[in-house]
This record gives sequence, C-alpha cells and structure tokens, in this order.
Amino acid sequence: MVKHLVTEVKYVYTFHEGDWRDKKLLGGKGSSLAQMTQMGLPVPPGFTITTEACREFYTPKKSEIDSVVKELERNPPPAVRDELIKRAWSIIDSLELPGGLMKQVIEHMKWLEEASGKKFGDVEGIPLLVSVRSGAAVSMPGMMDTVLNLGLNDEVVKALARASGNEWFAYDAYRRFLQMFGRIVLGISEKLFDEAFTRADGEFKRITVEKYSSELSAIREAYPKYSLRLDAQPPRDVAPRLWEESLNYIKKLVEEYKEIIRENWGEFPQDPMKQLELAIKAVFRSWMNPRAIFYRIANKITPEIADCTAVNVVTMVYGNMGWDSGTGVYFTRDVANGENVPYGEFLPNAQGEDVVAGIRTPLSLDELKTSMPHLYEQLIDAGKNLEKINKDVMDIEFTIERGRLYFLQNRAAKMTPLARVKTAVDMAKERIISREEAVLKVSPEAVLKLLYPMIDPRAKAAPIAKGLAASPGAVSGQVVFDPDTAVEWAKKGRRVILVRVETKPDDVHGFYAAAGVLTARGGLTSHAAVVARGIGKPAVVGAESIKIDYESKSFTVGDAVVKEGVWITIDGNTGSVYLGEIPTVAPEVKGELEELLTWADGFRKLGVRANADVPEDAAIARKFGAEGIGLLRIERMFRKPERLELLRKVILSESREERERYLRELSKMIKSDFKEMLKIMDRLPVVIRLIDPPLHEFLPAPEEVIKELYEARASLAEVRGRGVSAEVVKLEERVKYLEWLYKRVLTLKEHNPMLGHRGVRVGVTHPEIYYYLARAMIEAAAELKLEGNQPVLEIMVPQVAHVNEILFVKRKAILPALEDVEREYRVKLDVKVGTMIETVRACLTAREIAREVDFFSFGTNDLTQATFSFSRDDAENKFLPQYLEFEVLKENPFETIDTYGVGKLVEIATREGKESNPSLEVGICGEHGGDPKSIEFFNRAGLDYVSASPFRVVIARLAAAQAALREKFKVEKGD
Amino acid sequence: MVKHLVTEVKYVYTFHEGDWRDKKLLGGKGSSLAQMTQMGLPVPPGFTITTEACREFYTPKKSEIDSVVKELERNPPPAVRDELIKRAWSIIDSLELPGGLMKQVIEHMKWLEEASGKKFGDVEGIPLLVSVRSGAAVSMPGMMDTVLNLGLNDEVVKALARASGNEWFAYDAYRRFLQMFGRIVLGISEKLFDEAFTRADGEFKRITVEKYSSELSAIREAYPKYSLRLDAQPPRDVAPRLWEESLNYIKKLVEEYKEIIRENWGEFPQDPMKQLELAIKAVFRSWMNPRAIFYRIANKITPEIADCTAVNVVTMVYGNMGWDSGTGVYFTRDVANGENVPYGEFLPNAQGEDVVAGIRTPLSLDELKTSMPHLYEQLIDAGKNLEKINKDVMDIEFTIERGRLYFLQNRAAKMTPLARVKTAVDMAKERIISREEAVLKVSPEAVLKLLYPMIDPRAKAAPIAKGLAASPGAVSGQVVFDPDTAVEWAKKGRRVILVRVETKPDDVHGFYAAAGVLTARGGLTSHAAVVARGIGKPAVVGAESIKIDYESKSFTVGDAVVKEGVWITIDGNTGSVYLGEIPTVAPEVKGELEELLTWADGFRKLGVRANADVPEDAAIARKFGAEGIGLLRIERMFRKPERLELLRKVILSESREERERYLRELSKMIKSDFKEMLKIMDRLPVVIRLIDPPLHEFLPAPEEVIKELYEARASLAEVRGRGVSAEVVKLEERVKYLEWLYKRVLTLKEHNPMLGHRGVRVGVTHPEIYYYLARAMIEAAAELKLEGNQPVLEIMVPQVAHVNEILFVKRKAILPALEDVEREYRVKLDVKVGTMIETVRACLTAREIAREVDFFSFGTNDLTQATFSFSRDDAENKFLPQYLEFEVLKENPFETIDTYGVGKLVEIATREGKESNPSLEVGICGEHGGDPKSIEFFNRAGLDYVSASPFRVVIARLAAAQAALREKFKVEKGD
Repeated sequence: MVKHLVTEVKYVYTFHEGDWRDKKLLGGKGSSLAQMTQMGLPVPPGFTITTEACREFYTPKKSEIDSVVKELERNPPPAVRDELIKRAWSIIDSLELPGGLMKQVIEHMKWLEEASGKKFGDVEGIPLLVSVRSGAAVSMPGMMDTVLNLGLNDEVVKALARASGNEWFAYDAYRRFLQMFGRIVLGISEKLFDEAFTRADGEFKRITVEKYSSELSAIREAYPKYSLRLDAQPPRDVAPRLWEESLNYIKKLVEEYKEIIRENWGEFPQDPMKQLELAIKAVFRSWMNPRAIFYRIANKITPEIADCTAVNVVTMVYGNMGWDSGTGVYFTRDVANGENVPYGEFLPNAQGEDVVAGIRTPLSLDELKTSMPHLYEQLIDAGKNLEKINKDVMDIEFTIERGRLYFLQNRAAKMTPLARVKTAVDMAKERIISREEAVLKVSPEAVLKLLYPMIDPRAKAAPIAKGLAASPGAVSGQVVFDPDTAVEWAKKGRRVILVRVETKPDDVHGFYAAAGVLTARGGLTSHAAVVARGIGKPAVVGAESIKIDYESKSFTVGDAVVKEGVWITIDGNTGSVYLGEIPTVAPEVKGELEELLTWADGFRKLGVRANADVPEDAAIARKFGAEGIGLLRIERMFRKPERLELLRKVILSESREERERYLRELSKMIKSDFKEMLKIMDRLPVVIRLIDPPLHEFLPAPEEVIKELYEARASLAEVRGRGVSAEVVKLEERVKYLEWLYKRVLTLKEHNPMLGHRGVRVGVTHPEIYYYLARAMIEAAAELKLEGNQPVLEIMVPQVAHVNEILFVKRKAILPALEDVEREYRVKLDVKVGTMIETVRACLTAREIAREVDFFSFGTNDLTQATFSFSRDDAENKFLPQYLEFEVLKENPFETIDTYGVGKLVEIATREGKESNPSLEVGICGEHGGDPKSIEFFNRAGLDYVSASPFRVVIARLAAAQAALREKFKVEKGD
Repeated sequence: MVKHLVTEVKYVYTFHEGDWRDKKLLGGKGSSLAQMTQMGLPVPPGFTITTEACREFYTPKKSEIDSVVKELERNPPPAVRDELIKRAWSIIDSLELPGGLMKQVIEHMKWLEEASGKKFGDVEGIPLLVSVRSGAAVSMPGMMDTVLNLGLNDEVVKALARASGNEWFAYDAYRRFLQMFGRIVLGISEKLFDEAFTRADGEFKRITVEKYSSELSAIREAYPKYSLRLDAQPPRDVAPRLWEESLNYIKKLVEEYKEIIRENWGEFPQDPMKQLELAIKAVFRSWMNPRAIFYRIANKITPEIADCTAVNVVTMVYGNMGWDSGTGVYFTRDVANGENVPYGEFLPNAQGEDVVAGIRTPLSLDELKTSMPHLYEQLIDAGKNLEKINKDVMDIEFTIERGRLYFLQNRAAKMTPLARVKTAVDMAKERIISREEAVLKVSPEAVLKLLYPMIDPRAKAAPIAKGLAASPGAVSGQVVFDPDTAVEWAKKGRRVILVRVETKPDDVHGFYAAAGVLTARGGLTSHAAVVARGIGKPAVVGAESIKIDYESKSFTVGDAVVKEGVWITIDGNTGSVYLGEIPTVAPEVKGELEELLTWADGFRKLGVRANADVPEDAAIARKFGAEGIGLLRIERMFRKPERLELLRKVILSESREERERYLRELSKMIKSDFKEMLKIMDRLPVVIRLIDPPLHEFLPAPEEVIKELYEARASLAEVRGRGVSAEVVKLEERVKYLEWLYKRVLTLKEHNPMLGHRGVRVGVTHPEIYYYLARAMIEAAAELKLEGNQPVLEIMVPQVAHVNEILFVKRKAILPALEDVEREYRVKLDVKVGTMIETVRACLTAREIAREVDFFSFGTNDLTQATFSFSRDDAENKFLPQYLEFEVLKENPFETIDTYGVGKLVEIATREGKESNPSLEVGICGEHGGDPKSIEFFNRAGLDYVSASPFRVVIARLAAAQAALREKFKVEKGD
C-alpha cells in the first residue's frame, strides 16, 4: 500500500483499498473491480482514480460549463446546440489535471509493478501494459472512452514480441494502440487511420491472391470459413510466408500511423508515463463529450446520480498466450429464455479478431468445463455469488492467461423480454430479491414486446435482410413502393407493406394505409421510425442491404428481386425482413408473466380498466385483467351499414319529429350491444360515452357528393340522349337526391369539426339524441338486472366546458331516460353520471363541475389537442414529424403526456374536483392510459384508475405497480 | 312624532325622522322622500317601513330561501330554474309579518291623519288614501310592486266622489284600485280583470257609436285626436250623457271586479287597515318574485348592496282637482342634448289617461312658468339643489293639488348618450362633481353608440315602422327575404338588409352577408338580436307592424308594400325603419367627448393601442387616440389579386428553391405597406404578426376545384366534338392544371385548420417563409430610419405552444433577417421580438417563454376557442345562439372574456411571465380588448395595454380609466 501525507487528498485507490459500495466515488467499473478483488476473485491488479479527481479537473471552469449544460438541458434546436457544444469544448481544452494527481499515479504505478511482477516500459523482461478505462457511477455504455495496451512504444513492442513469442500479435497490438491513442487521446480524426488501413489492406489482399495462392488454399482447406484480412493473424503453422508478409504490412502501418500522429499532433510520445498522463486527461474530458452529455440529459442522470467519471488503470492480460489461455463471456442465466443455467462462450488461445477471420469459432462454456474444470467451477461459483450480492443476472468477462483465470468485468446482463420476466420471478422465488424488486426489474416496454405478434418460433425462416427494429410487431403484407398505391390497395382490402428508401411528411397517408413500413435508410429517430411508432405500425428501418428501384417498382437484396405485390414479412421486434408470409403468433399472458402481474396488482394504487367498444375487445380486456371498461365509444357501433344509414337519417332530419322516429329505431338496435358488453363485464363498471364526434363525420365529404352529382348528371344527359325513359326517371330522382344531399352536407359542414358541434353540444341543441342513447344503455342495464345479473353502468358526457352543460343534459335527457326506464321496467337502477374532462375549461372549473357528477375521466387526447392547439390528425400528417426531428418537441405529446403543460391541468382538475366532491372518482381514458411514463404521472397526480386499450392493460398493471413502488421507496428514503 | 318603548325595534320612520343617507335602511324611494321632506320641499306626508322589517319577515325561512337563491345564482337551465322558483314560493307563502310591526303602522297612520288633516276610511269628509310603494336600496325599475289609492271601499268611494266633485274619477279610481289590489296583493291572475274590462269596453264602444253619435261628433270637433275608451273620462261638458253612460259601465265593472275577487280569493276586504296590512305583506313578498331575483343576479346586486325592500306609505294627492291642479315631470337638464336648461312636461287638471284618450296634450314646462310662476320657480330651485346634493341630473315627478306643489319622487335622469357625456363634463366644470366622477358617469356602451353611424339629424325622415333597437348602427340596403339570396346578392357586391319574421340558426350565413337585419317578431334576446350583436351588424327586431309574405317576396306596413330589392334604412340605435336610403353620418370625437377622454387618459393605467391592418385604419386609430398598433395582421395585405396569386404560388411550391423565389418577390411587394404603417405610427410601437392562418385558407376549397374540373372536362368534350383544335389545347392544359391543383389542395387540406399547420408551425417547417416576411418588415424599418423617421417595430410570433418554437424561429428566421438587413443597410435597429399568447400551453408555460421574448400579447379569440374547445365560426353558426337562448352560457365568451376560465389563464400567464422577465411587456390584441367588461378584467390582471379595433379605441380609453378609478376607490375604501 502507498502512504500519503494526511493533508493530501487521496485521488487514487487500488482495487483492494476502495469501498466498492461507493460507486459515486469509484464509478461503476471501479466499484465492480474492487468488489471482485475484495471478494477474493482474481482480478488483474490495478487502481482507480476517483470521480473526485475528475470533478477537481473541471473545478476551475465549473460555472461556465454548468451554464452551457443548463442551456443544453432546455433542449434547444440543433443550430443552437452546435454553438453551445463548440463553446463547451473551447473551455474544456484549456483544463489541466489537478495538482498532485500524477504524483499519486506514479506511486501507484510503482505498486502495480510490484503487484504484477512486470515493469512499465520494460524493454527486456515482460513489459507491464495497462488499459485505461472510464467508469461513471451509472453505466453509460459506449458514451466515454477507453484505451488498451497503453505502455507500448518502439522498444517495448519488441519486448512484448519476445515475451509472447508472437511478433505479429505484438505489432498488431502496437498498431491498434496507436490508432486508439491517436483518436481518443490526441483527438486525431479516425478517418485518417481508416484510410491508411484500407489502403494497406487492399494492397495486402491483392498481392496475397497471386503470390501466396497455394498457402491461401491450404488455409481454406483447414478453415473453410477463412476470410483474408490484414487485421487478423493468418495461421502461422499453415501459412508461414503469408504470416510473415502480413507482419511486414502491420509494421509498415505502425510507421504510417506514427507519421499521421506526427503531422496532426506532434511526435508520438514514447514515454509510457507521458502516455498515461495524456490518457487520464482524455478520459476526464470524455465526460463532457456531446454524446455523454446528451445521454445524461436523455436518461435524466443528474449530478446527484453521477458526477464525473472515474479512471481505471488495469494490468493487461492476454488470452492468446497458448492453449492454456483463452477468453470468454459468462452469463449467470440464459439471457434468451431466462432458464437458470450458465450460458456463455469461450475461445481458447485466441483474440476476438480470430473469430472475425473465421479461423476460430467460439465454443460453448461447456468446453471450458471439460478442458479446465477447476477454472469452470471457480467461474460459476463467482457468478452465483455476484448474483446474490448484486441482485441481478450477471454478465461476466473473463480471460485465462497461461492457466490463470482473471475476472475483467461484471455487470447486469442484458436479456430478452422473456428472460427478463422469467429471471425476475425466479430470483424472487429463490429469495435473491424481493417481489417488489422483481416487479421493478421488468420494464413495461419489455412486456409490451411480449404482447405484439411475433414470428412463430417454429417457422424457422431465414431473413433476407436486417434493419433496425424501429416499431414492434411482426406483420406480413404485399410490397408497395409509394404511399398513393398503399392507400389505393388498402381500400381494396389488401394488406400492404410500404417500402421506401426513406420517408418524408408527404408519405404519411401511406403509413396509415399500410400494415407495416420498411425503409432502406435512416436510424431509430428517422421520420419513418418516429411516425410508425407514433401510430403503432410495425416498422423496420435502415435495412441497407435492400436496393430499391422506384422506376421498376422492385427492390433487390443479394440476388433476390422483390417486385410490387410480392408478399414479405417484417419483424419490428428484431429488425428482420423475410420473403413470403411467415406465420406469426399472437401474445398470451401466462407462466411467470402472470405471476409477476399478480404481484404487481398487489402493489399498485391505480385501478386499471380497458377502452373497449365491441364485445371481442371487452373479452380480451377481461382476460388481460381489466377491472372494468373505462371507455366504450358508441361511435364504433355505427359501423354496420344498416345502422350507419339510420344514423345518417337522424343527422339529416329536418324536424325533431322525424329525428325522434329514427332515434327510436336506432336505440333498439344498439341496446343489444350494450347488453352484451355489460354482461361480459358483469359486476365491473362500464363507462359508456354519449356520442362524441361531430355528426357530419358520419356523412360523406362535400367533394365526394359533388363528384357523384356531376357523374349522375352526365349519365342522365347520356341516357336522355338514348331515350330510355325508365332509366331517366331513376336518374332524375338520384340527381335530385344528390342535390339535396349536397346542400345538407354543406350546411352541416364545419370549419373545425374537432371544436365544432359535437359531444355535449349536440346534447344541448338536440336533447332527444342524448335521451334515446341514454335510454338504450339504461334499458340494457334494466333487462340484465331483471335477468339476475349485476350490471354497473356509468354514463359519460363528453366535451363539457361549462357546468351548465352537464346540468342541462342531465335534466333534459339522462335523468328523464332513467326515470322513464325505471317506471316502465319497474326496477331501481344505480346509474352513475360523469363527465369526460377533455376541454381546458373543464379542468379550470373542475370545482363547479365536480359538484354535479359522480366521476371524471380525462380525455387526454383532446385535452392535449386543446392545450397545444394541435389537431392530432393534422399535426401527425403535417408538422409533428419535423418537430420531433428538429427536437422542438422531445416526445410526441399524444404518446407520452406533456406533464408540464397538459399535466398541470390534470393536476388542477384532480385536486380541485376531489376537494369539492370527496366521493368523486377520477380516471383517464385517453391513449396515455397505456403509456408507462404517463401512468407514473397519473399515479403521482392522485387519479383512481387508468383505462388503456385491451393489449395495454397488462402494461398498465405493471407500470401502475412500479409507479406506486417508486413513490413508496421515495417516501421511505425521505426524498 | 310617535313614541315607542325603547326595547321595541323601530320599524317605521316618518319622512321627517329617517336619516336619508341611510338608503340601506329606508330604500332608495324612502330615502329620496325623506331627503326632499327634510330639505323643506313639500312632499305628501307619509312614512317608511324599513328594510329591516322586511328582513325580519324572511328570517324564519332564511336559510331555505338562501339555498334556493344560491342555486339560481349558478344560472341553471330554465327547467331547473322553474322548479326552484316553485319551491321558493311555497316557502314564502307561509310567512307572516313581524310581530309588533302592525302596531307601529297603526300608530303612524294616526299621525298621518293628523298631518294630512284627512281620515283613513273616512266616509264623510275628505278620505285619506295612500299609495303603498316598494323601494330597495338600489333602483330596480319595474321589478317590485306598488298599490295606489289604498283605503277605498264601497263607502269611502262615495266620500271621494263628493269631496272631488267628480264621481267618474272616484269610481274609476276604485276600479283601478280593485284590479291592482286583486292582482298584486291577492295574487289573482290579471287575465280575469282584463277579460272583464275588454268585454265592458267593447260593449260600451258598440252602444256609444249608435246611441251617442251626436255627442261623439261634438267631442271629435273639440278634440280631433279623441279616441273612445272606457278607461278615459269623456269631457263631461261636451258629452254629459256619454259621461253618465261611461260612469255606469265603470260602476258595473267595480261590481264585476269584486265578484272576481270573491270567487278567487274571498270577500274583498272593506277594512282599509286590513287592506294596508295585506299590501305591506305583498310588497315584502315582491322582493322575492322571480323577476326581482333575476334582476338582482343579472345586475350583481348582492345583500351587501341591497338586502330586502322598504315599504313607503304616502298620502295620495291628485292633479285633476281643477285648473289650479296638474301633474308633470321635470328634468333638471335637457336629457336629449344635455344642454343646461330645464326640460319636462306639464298637464293641468288632468290624469295620465286623458293624454291617452287624446283630450289633453302635455304642455311644455314653460306653460307652468307662465301660469304658476311661483310654483315653477320653487320647482326649478328644488331641482338645482337636488342636482348638487345627488350629483346627477334629476328626474322629478310632481303634482299640483289645488294650487299646492307636491314632490312625489326624484331620481337620476335617464339620458341619451350625447346628453350623458355633455352633462357629465358640464357638471364637472360647474364643480358639482369631480372629473373622476364625470369619467365614471359615462358608460362605454353609451359612447359606443355615439360612434356608430347615425341617421343624419338633418334628414328629417319619418320612420315607416318601429321595433326594438337590438344592435347599434344605422345602415341602408336592399330588402331580401331569405339568407341564400342575401349571400348571393352580397357576392355580387350589393348591400342588403335581411328581413325575416324571425330567424333561426340555419339563417346565420345570411347575417354575415347582410349589412343589417330586420325582424317582425322577437325581443332583445331573440336569436336575431343575439347573433346580430354578436357579429356587430345593425339590427331592429320585433317591428310588429310589418307583415311579411315570403311567397310574394314583400312586406306591407300600413298601406305601403315593400318588395324584394327595394332600399330601406334601419336604425339599430333607435329601432326605426325607414323607406329609401336615408343619409347617415359617421361618428366623430369632439367637444365634450374629447374633453372627457382627455381626463380619462389621465386616470388610466392601461395603454390603448389599435388593431389595424391597412393604412386607412391606422390613420383612424391615431385620430381616435391610439398609442400604437397592437396587432397588424399581414394576411389582410394579401387581398390584392396579384399578391394573392403570388402567395398561392408560395404555398403550392413543391421545393424550397421555388418557394424562396416567390417569397423574394412577395417580400418586396409588402415592404411598402409596412413602411406606410410604420410611418403613420412614427415613434409609436407597431406590432406586426408573422403569418398566422392556415396556408390553405388562401386556396380554393376542394369542392370548388372539383366543380371547375368537371366543368372544364365537359367543355373539353364538347369542344373536341366540334373539333376546334386551338381551344382543345387550351382546355387540355386547363384540365391538367385543375387536376394538379385538386391533388395539391387535397394534400394541403386539413381536418381542423384552426389547430393545424399554421402560425409558428409554418415558421418551424418552412423557416424561409418567416425569414422573408421578417425581412420585409425590417427593411421597411431600416429605410424609414435612414430617411430620418423613428419607426418602432415589434415582431410577433403567433400560435406558440412551446418555448422551443420561439427559440427555433428566432434563430432560424428572425435574427438572421435582422442581421442581414442591418449588414446590408448599414444601420442598427432596435427590433423587439415577442409572442402572441393564444394557446393554453403558452399560458401554462409562460415562465419559460417569457425568458426568450420582449413581449406577450394575448390572442384571446383563439385562447377562448382552445379553452372552451369551441371553434368560433362553427359555434356562432351552430350552437352558440341556443346556448345563449337556453342560458347555458350567459354571455358570448367571444364578446366578453370568460374571466372564470380563460381569465384564469390570462392571470397565470401575466403573473408568471412578469415574474420570470420583469421587463416583459404584456398586452392583449383579441377582440376583447375593446369590450369594457373585459377591459376591467385586464386592468385587474395587471396587463400593460389593450389593443382594440380603431372604433373601439375610444371605448377602451374610457373603460380603462373607469377600471383604474374603480380599483383606486376600492383600495381607498379598504375593500
């Protein structure tokens, strides 16, 4: 151990010294290395430079940097962002390492030499090489930088060649080190190194094919999958001359790389300690690289959670030092299916590059069990221990160097959604974690993926292309290449997949028509990905291997040509694209998932209902655990042609008497649907909403009518010319009718139907409509009750903005309907009357409205529209994709509730409504009811229940439990 | 004076006793009678029963009644209201007069007998008769009840006949008393009395014509305007037999009336004291009649202002006791033009009925001056004194009984708007009132009427019909009888007046097309009246003398027949209808009005700007005293055909390059308009709003395009048939263009344009549009500055919902435009950038937005739409008229701001915006900026200015001053 004067801040801790629980000081990686070291596991010796040292590094310019970060946190548009980043870097470039730090580092390097028995910069014996790794308190994968093989220089590389007995390996390590160091530490553009490599690689391949063709054949005989690459060591035993040639190329590259460094920075620092100093500084700086800053903002990693990165300096060990060496990765459970069996890969005497080159195939862990049983046992034991301590499935990297096992890293394993659920439940049963912890471990998004259609695992189909999994769900359809065709074919009842190079706002109508979307270009935030997720269509984006030719209406992938109309299947869960119609399977809740959800139900405060309009949906919802129906939209009941026709007559009626006649008929028709729904949900509440959309939505558009009119007139003129009198009379009538219809449709047309004559406004101007609809529901309930059931009917009035509206329709329509039915059926009914809270004014006057109703149910879709003044239809078609692309908005407010704006209204209305009517029941039936982030908000806002689409009921149950648990733990922690 | 035991509550005060300043105790009338009595003016002796007695009357059921009133205050729909009123009456019916009250009344009646020298119920000498009048602390004209001639019975009437020497007068007084007492005190339906009277009147007229034809002729010779009526005394000297016959009929009616009372209530109470007791109770009850309750609710008369009514018992005096008697009314100044000269009417030896019968014509006050100069002087002196004490122009009722002048009542006079302004200013100059009081005296609505076009007073035209003045302004136009014709003719540029029996929601498109509206039926809250006021069209409603025949498209009035297309003029200020085009005069601010407004400017805190889009409006606004332009809408600048065409090209552009080319051209065109506006308002701020409406508003509707397309295709087919090739080519091109246009128009079509791709959203998706528009304004400012002017440009971004939107367009469009212009013109400009606050989310996130802008300007029109989820266009066409009719809403929220809902948002945004940016300037540019009630709210909410349409600038100046003064006085009073 190293001694310090007490007055000096201790910046450096060996893995034996540090308190591994103090992740904030040591960072995640440092803590994990300390943990393993202190558990007695063999870890390559090393030390951690604390996050405190990093903070100290930034201290001189802290306020300037903070103010830039603060501005970045406000999520400015890209132009502003770029300026801010430039400003940040000019500040950071001027910083120096804290005084005294390098003194402590040098002391610890001395200790490391003792501990490893090697010397840093040794040009004779076995040289000590180190890796320099970043590591903040929380994992920020790929966000910050790491340098390997530090300590190499022109002389040390020779020592390494001697010590390892493999000159190729030594020079390749040196080449890689130069490139990494150049890029990360010295800030030289990677392009320069890549260009040099590509040039050398090309030349090497060219000469090889001619000059070493016989050796090449020999390799191919031994290793059929062999691929010739300059950055993979050829098998020396089979092809010694080729090996030699390859080594020469590597050596030449080393010189070229040094030249690049010279030109762009200065002479490459041969002094290992200088290398180390520069690398530490680079890791510190990487805390503030833009990727890292945005990762922290996006993941809400505040300074309280993680402030600055630590730096870990670790002795390099090698798995390619002979057949008693090797390298591998070990997962403590099967990360694919969650089974409690060790899982992983092992590669003896090799480096990763060998796999790439095709001269090695990774072996299963069982191989290690056979070849080195004691090491295997040591590994598995350590894994089980780590699982218990860290309360999670572990992903452990290890290396065996000359018969000695080294643990390089351990972290929580990434798993498939299936495995995530199973392992969480299993670990709770094994008492490794509590049930609460198990519930918190599974993200609702993961469960969501389990619920979307998946490719049938028995199908064993091979994908023809791979892209990014942009929007979940697997779906088959016929290929079309433009949105207009998509719309046209969809109208004819065909299922289509829209295939585009990339998409733009003008294509969006095609998204709605298509069953799924496939693009050749673009990432997870591309227009296609954002829109597809927005409207819930499966999508695969950036499948770069498909080449689209719009002219010939086809795409090629490899040798295959796929023409318009051909069936393909895309899997938005995995990014795979298949030829033909691959069978998919529908989701089911069973086994561990069901168990987990039952636990969740015990923890949550929010009730979970479903939005369901038809009996099929109600049945699914009940199966998925819905505790009632939070929203039944009558509108869906009018899709049947004979009902639509009747409804049209109601709307087009020119007198109240006429309207009432049609209403009576309509009322009888829909009563049976209500009965069925109430029966499926017997004893559970069913909220039925009185008609909401603008009535003319059920009528044809004026331009459609005028088209028909012109066509009818043309036919009439033509038929008249031919003198067919029976036809003439018929057509004359039709023309007359269409003329009348056009006039009516124009009269009923509205400028902004969303804000027009709809919802309760129809109830006020035409109470008879609300009366007959209410009557149909109440009659359904009365009949069920008389038949011995227990229907729970809740009637909901939509679009209320003023308490008088609800008073008016209650007295003029709903209560009369209730009284009439009770009298006629001689039955007493307990019907609740409530209102949808979906106008801003309803939120602002919740106190008054609450006095007159039994329940509130937030219609957050319309409320979001009104709060933003965005029409959802228009926004998602015209400007929202660009808003998300330019990051003017960070999330689609129709997916995740805008807590800052809309949420404020929800909070006001909930609080004031409950204050004024303590028995008021408050729910939410907008689409946000199925969104986990939004559910967390609704839990906090004090709602009683959420109502989600049937599939999302499962997600809502889990998300509601997590929200309640997080709130509970927060309170317990005293936050 | 009457003595009481000290322990007894004093409920009754003679006019000498009461403190006239204590209006709350004595009521307005009681206080006025006490005031005049104590000033030494001759007032018929009498006493007041206090409001405290009335309160005591209600005390036993106070909480029950209060709860009903509370519910009524919440303005329930009519059905609920009717129930509540029924409930209230069943409670009130059971109440009794407070104990001890009648004892005090009887004592005071004794005192009254002494004071008047007459006896109550005297059947020998001159009987004492009294009037029993209600009177609350504030005037509630016509809301409560009054009984005259109380004390008459079968015997007393004979004494009265003897004492007056006029039996007809005595029995007519008795008949009238029976009817009044029956209706008001005994609650018998007035219809019964009316039917009896109509029957008797008919019979009397029938027999008269035959039997007394010669006497009738004699009367007609003496009094050419004589009209035969049973309820007017025939001139006895000219027609003694007719007089006798008439008296017999009156006596028969007296018996019939008593029979009606007997059948519906019981024997008519002959005891005068019993009559008095019942009458007092009836007046107390009238405080709670529905008319009175609603009057108080509507006028916000809370218990703090007036609680219960007093009852005044006053000795009756008569003006028909000979030629030394008479009756009259005296206004202390001319209520028509405001001149400081006495004004009024005098009728010697007569009752009001004589005027009705045509045997008397009221004389001017000068007549009194000539005939009884000392009484005239007494009257005028008293008037001047009352004016000084009561600080207002007085309306004084007086009666002269046998050479003695009696003051019956004094109250503030009702005046024309013109007189209101002049007298207020004059009285301030005469030091009767302060300037603050003068400003508070004139209602902004009155000034508004002064500003609408009026019939030219020199025109001397005679109206052909009279209706109700439903919506101000005088206007001429051609008569049309249906809304479709109105639209059609208006499109052709004709000015039309829509004439209907009554209107319904389906007619509203005709209102927009017409210059004015005239109906034969309906009151001031009828559909026609509400809609016309809502959209600011002059209207006369309920002109019942016009008979409309839709079939023949004409109306008759008297002998005149007015056919469709004939010119008429309606005057919504007075309700008059004229034949032909009567000249009207435009308003001007001058003389006393100007003086008053200058005073107002000194008192107000709010600035007043104008909304003006074109130079003409800007000039008017500056003339009316606007302190800048609060809203210049660019859209109006695109009405010129060549500009509209260019704008269409911008919108239809399919690439950014194309769009920029057209924008550059457009920018040049509008720059000169900006220059002109900025120059008119030199040194004053001009807020120019970047383009706001949905772009497709500038394009034709799809159904229009498709119509044109079908017609072009038909023409093409026809021309092709005829083989005219040049035409064919032209038409083919046209068809092609229309097909393209239809596709583009459909692509751009939006479901809800109000909430669609508009305002800042266009600026985000197409920053080039905002860039070029901003550039045009900034160039205008730059050029003006270089020419030596001082333009003050404020650029406003509309529809902002998220702070990032404003950040984005500032960085991408506005600031680049500013930098480019400053560089190119070599001039430094001080341009403010602000945002319109018209989305709900902008209000809720004002704190964030305020940091990025220089000013806020509330767009309360859109904000109201978003808060209610009402589209104004659709609401006013489809359901708002019914909402107002059914009183679901009490006021049109687009006229007067909904302080409870929308106002809450305005308050939040103003407070939080100013907290986060103390230099933020906050204004309002919605139409509410010109509405006095709304201005009162904006003053309270702490805004810096309002911006109103040019005409309303004057109103805003006055309303702002009143708001500030009321606030100041409130603070001074410590409320």
